[in-house]
Amino acid sequence: MFTPDPTDHQENLCNGYPPIKLVNRKTETERTIVKVAGAELGGTDIVIIAGPCSIESKEQLKAIADSVKNSGARILRGGVYKPRTSPYSFQGLRDEGLQLLSWIRKETRLPVVTEVMDPRKLELVCQHADMIQIGSRNMHNTPLLNEVGQIRKPVLLKRGMAATIEEFLFAAEYIVKMGNEQVVLCERGIRTFETSTRFTLDISAIPLLKRLCHLPVIVDPSHGSGQWWMVPWLSKAALAAGADGLIIEVHHDPARALCDGGQSLLPEKFQVLMDELKKLAEVMGRKISV
Amino acid sequence: MFTPDPTDHQENLCNGYPPIKLVNRKTETERTIVKVAGAELGGTDIVIIAGPCSIESKEQLKAIADSVKNSGARILRGGVYKPRTSPYSFQGLRDEGLQLLSWIRKETRLPVVTEVMDPRKLELVCQHADMIQIGSRNMHNTPLLNEVGQIRKPVLLKRGMAATIEEFLFAAEYIVKMGNEQVVLCERGIRTFETSTRFTLDISAIPLLKRLCHLPVIVDPSHGSGQWWMVPWLSKAALAAGADGLIIEVHHDPARALCDGGQSLLPEKFQVLMDELKKLAEVMGRKISV
Amino acid sequence: MFTPDPTDHQENLCNGYPPIKLVNRKTETERTIVKVAGAELGGTDIVIIAGPCSIESKEQLKAIADSVKNSGARILRGGVYKPRTSPYSFQGLRDEGLQLLSWIRKETRLPVVTEVMDPRKLELVCQHADMIQIGSRNMHNTPLLNEVGQIRKPVLLKRGMAATIEEFLFAAEYIVKMGNEQVVLCERGIRTFETSTRFTLDISAIPLLKRLCHLPVIVDPSHGSGQWWMVPWLSKAALAAGADGLIIEVHHDPARALCDGGQSLLPEKFQVLMDELKKLAEVMGRKISV
Amino acid sequence: MFTPDPTDHQENLCNGYPPIKLVNRKTETERTIVKVAGAELGGTDIVIIAGPCSIESKEQLKAIADSVKNSGARILRGGVYKPRTSPYSFQGLRDEGLQLLSWIRKETRLPVVTEVMDPRKLELVCQHADMIQIGSRNMHNTPLLNEVGQIRKPVLLKRGMAATIEEFLFAAEYIVKMGNEQVVLCERGIRTFETSTRFTLDISAIPLLKRLCHLPVIVDPSHGSGQWWMVPWLSKAALAAGADGLIIEVHHDPARALCDGGQSLLPEKFQVLMDELKKLAEVMGRKISV
Repeated sequence: MFTPDPTDHQENLCNGYPPIKLVNRKTETERTIVKVAGAELGGTDIVIIAGPCSIESKEQLKAIADSVKNSGARILRGGVYKPRTSPYSFQGLRDEGLQLLSWIRKETRLPVVTEVMDPRKLELVCQHADMIQIGSRNMHNTPLLNEVGQIRKPVLLKRGMAATIEEFLFAAEYIVKMGNEQVVLCERGIRTFETSTRFTLDISAIPLLKRLCHLPVIVDPSHGSGQWWMVPWLSKAALAAGADGLIIEVHHDPARALCDGGQSLLPEKFQVLMDELKKLAEVMGRKISV
Repeated sequence: MFTPDPTDHQENLCNGYPPIKLVNRKTETERTIVKVAGAELGGTDIVIIAGPCSIESKEQLKAIADSVKNSGARILRGGVYKPRTSPYSFQGLRDEGLQLLSWIRKETRLPVVTEVMDPRKLELVCQHADMIQIGSRNMHNTPLLNEVGQIRKPVLLKRGMAATIEEFLFAAEYIVKMGNEQVVLCERGIRTFETSTRFTLDISAIPLLKRLCHLPVIVDPSHGSGQWWMVPWLSKAALAAGADGLIIEVHHDPARALCDGGQSLLPEKFQVLMDELKKLAEVMGRKISV
Repeated sequence: MFTPDPTDHQENLCNGYPPIKLVNRKTETERTIVKVAGAELGGTDIVIIAGPCSIESKEQLKAIADSVKNSGARILRGGVYKPRTSPYSFQGLRDEGLQLLSWIRKETRLPVVTEVMDPRKLELVCQHADMIQIGSRNMHNTPLLNEVGQIRKPVLLKRGMAATIEEFLFAAEYIVKMGNEQVVLCERGIRTFETSTRFTLDISAIPLLKRLCHLPVIVDPSHGSGQWWMVPWLSKAALAAGADGLIIEVHHDPARALCDGGQSLLPEKFQVLMDELKKLAEVMGRKISV
Repeated sequence: MFTPDPTDHQENLCNGYPPIKLVNRKTETERTIVKVAGAELGGTDIVIIAGPCSIESKEQLKAIADSVKNSGARILRGGVYKPRTSPYSFQGLRDEGLQLLSWIRKETRLPVVTEVMDPRKLELVCQHADMIQIGSRNMHNTPLLNEVGQIRKPVLLKRGMAATIEEFLFAAEYIVKMGNEQVVLCERGIRTFETSTRFTLDISAIPLLKRLCHLPVIVDPSHGSGQWWMVPWLSKAALAAGADGLIIEVHHDPARALCDGGQSLLPEKFQVLMDELKKLAEVMGRKISV
């Protein structure tokens, strides 16, 4: 397994991890910029992705999309195919939800990212979304990785909840090896013994991934904590640790959300957070463009 | 086990966790300030503790202590009794090291913190140190907790590497229940499946502990990562997540360090980090006093 | 999350876990028998599945299949689509391997089990295999679970390497809810901090799953340890803990195996193990039929 | 960290792990026998240790001690100093309990094992107990390890709940290096993400420890599961995996136990288990002497 040599006190940040050939960073300045419509991930800009966990209705989607856009989000998130633990939980609006995705893109002019779990749905979803998410539960799903490696849309690849850094990089390597270099890595919490948070956000993954790999790295503080009030703290920590962006769940009525209401920020709290993040980005030598 | 209710979207930050009676935060403004000589932990100030993992010699200690003081550290760390995995590893200078602690306090006028593992050594160490550390491997050592509960020195309590937040708070409760309210909590990384870092720094522990408990919370990014180059990133993340301070390993010759050289910052890198932290503290509404 | 009440000292073994409706055991004697050709899993018989990790060639397959059949295996395992961490590792013979599966079934008259990762391959694979495996990395792949829920072949569902017992049962529930009740659960090791084994075999999962659920439960000691010499010990432990069967990797030339040679038993060691297991089964009130 | 080479298909079981010098097994037949009064751990005999979690009263102790003796236990367990998570939980009868230990030894002629946490109590406890237990929470407590290394009583060393196999062996090495070779290792469950059991019993630790080390290895299925009904299954699994003994919590009135009632077997269930274990031991080429 990969372990950098901690006794080496030279700043050789580019030796990487040789079994990984394509996503491995080879020079100190090598960085991939992933473009999602006007938003650029991996450069100086910090890009905030926000929106509901699941798309529930036209009204819900419009209310949330408008508010996160006003607050400065550059990409809208919204699940239509939901990977739920129980078959009795809401599974998303599925194919129907795709129409809403297309509609909201036009309404708000925000690009949208949504998860695909089934390779047979990929072509269809690509007609409605600007960025394809591979969720944590499918990070090891190699047929799906191979499939998104062949599309011409950027991919948001979430770390598996029990995936090592090495396995995460190899999952990205599957996609890039098939020809799609537009991959954004997302740390979203790993499974540990600690139960007072839904997952344990692995903050160290950010500098480690950015040292080893030239792809942009973002963080999901909503799944990483499972608790709305913790999201601002983890968002700031992620930026301070060098993240290139965040993906945040926002809901205007979390108590009635069909999925993950407990980890969704109210729009007004998201606005407050964005103001704080802008100041923080500046200190880090970055910026949040609107 | 403790889990806050994530569906409650009110800001009731003070309901705490009732089985914990004394270290439980009861009002929104309740905060304990722990004073170590002139340094105040838990208020507006961010306090940086720095120094070698182990005290090795007068020369080593002087070189490192001078440099961290110049860079703005307010408390000096230095181990004399070392809890090592192998009995064949350097176990610290032990009783001899205590004289060096007293000497360096006078030389630099920095207060010192050092670890005690054996309750029979506590009285002796208290004559030489300003703050007593209970290490991760002894967080569950209740006789030791009861003992430091009876001294009149502040205690730096590190989270056990497999301790839940609940267990960590109960360990602090043991100390406070015996009469010593001057306890600082330290998140230092938990044990998970990920092996590319020595431990996984649980960044979520910071807001969680600060919500539940009125004691100051600091972070050890050196043990939390095991890699010197990651320390600046984790230090900044910790401050952004609301930490009241940091404890950082610094060594002027890490390649020859008798313990943990791989995770020790060079003095010049520590200086650079301090400058960055000062700016970050300001954005967070805090400050690093010198 | 599910936790049985340990303070209840009555033998009410059938209260189950209500959110799980179909795979939940409702009476003390309720048990599903899953039939794979002549082999019956979940009854008195203990069924041993054995064979190579991956099918590599006709010669390799024949040599191993003959030997495991002679030793008493009732079902042959053999991967053709392999979920590998690295895209540069051997990915299995893929579609070509299916012909070999059909061929060996006729040659040996052993039923075969093989893994499917891609729902688009399921129909094809069903023409060649007697039992479909859903691997650990796809336990959360709900489109795939829904798909195997609609076939008329038994399914071998492996526990995700970070799946809780509750999540594992819900994954089975997905399949059964779609109409396929022929599901066998397989504990194969979970990811923990311990690195001297590939995974940590969760032996407690066996009695827990058998208490909560009416489906047969088998164990994979090969992946559970990653080390061939440990396989006999874990196999015996699994039987003693109440497992209904085992799935064991056997290779006649492990040093040259294209996948997982280090955890494959030599045929002669597998024979010795089978003899031991027969005696052990008897003491447990079970038997290994040939 | 230690990882045996799984690709080596020779039976070189004795190469050990060189940084560990004393507890390292050097020849295939090297085994230490630890004698506790008449009981011999590490030979052909399987030794069952049983008794209450905590000693609560003369009546309780007598009732339980008599019953476990009648069922075939060779050593009596009983805690007097209890390492509890909360300072508000029952902490054991402490010094008073020691008199009961001495009394019950004479009454039943069973040797007793009890936990010591404080090195200052060791001399006193040695006057009342036949074997000294170092609990999971103190496995890393090196002053205590050094201290029990200097007594002339056998030591029962429990694995830390987050200790790797390597760290566990090093803890034993501390004791043996100080001169006490009478050490028994005890696997008692590790901390993982799974919450439906109190800890995850690491069954693989048994063959691994026995391969690497010449000390006897026993298992604690009570703490390993936290649930009484699971204890028989885990006990059988432990024996099948090669354990040299078991330590089992038994209570005649678990609903009123002051500690860990939920994981304590009723005496009549312990009797049934002992009968099953005797048959199982025989198949394993071992025996349970009475």
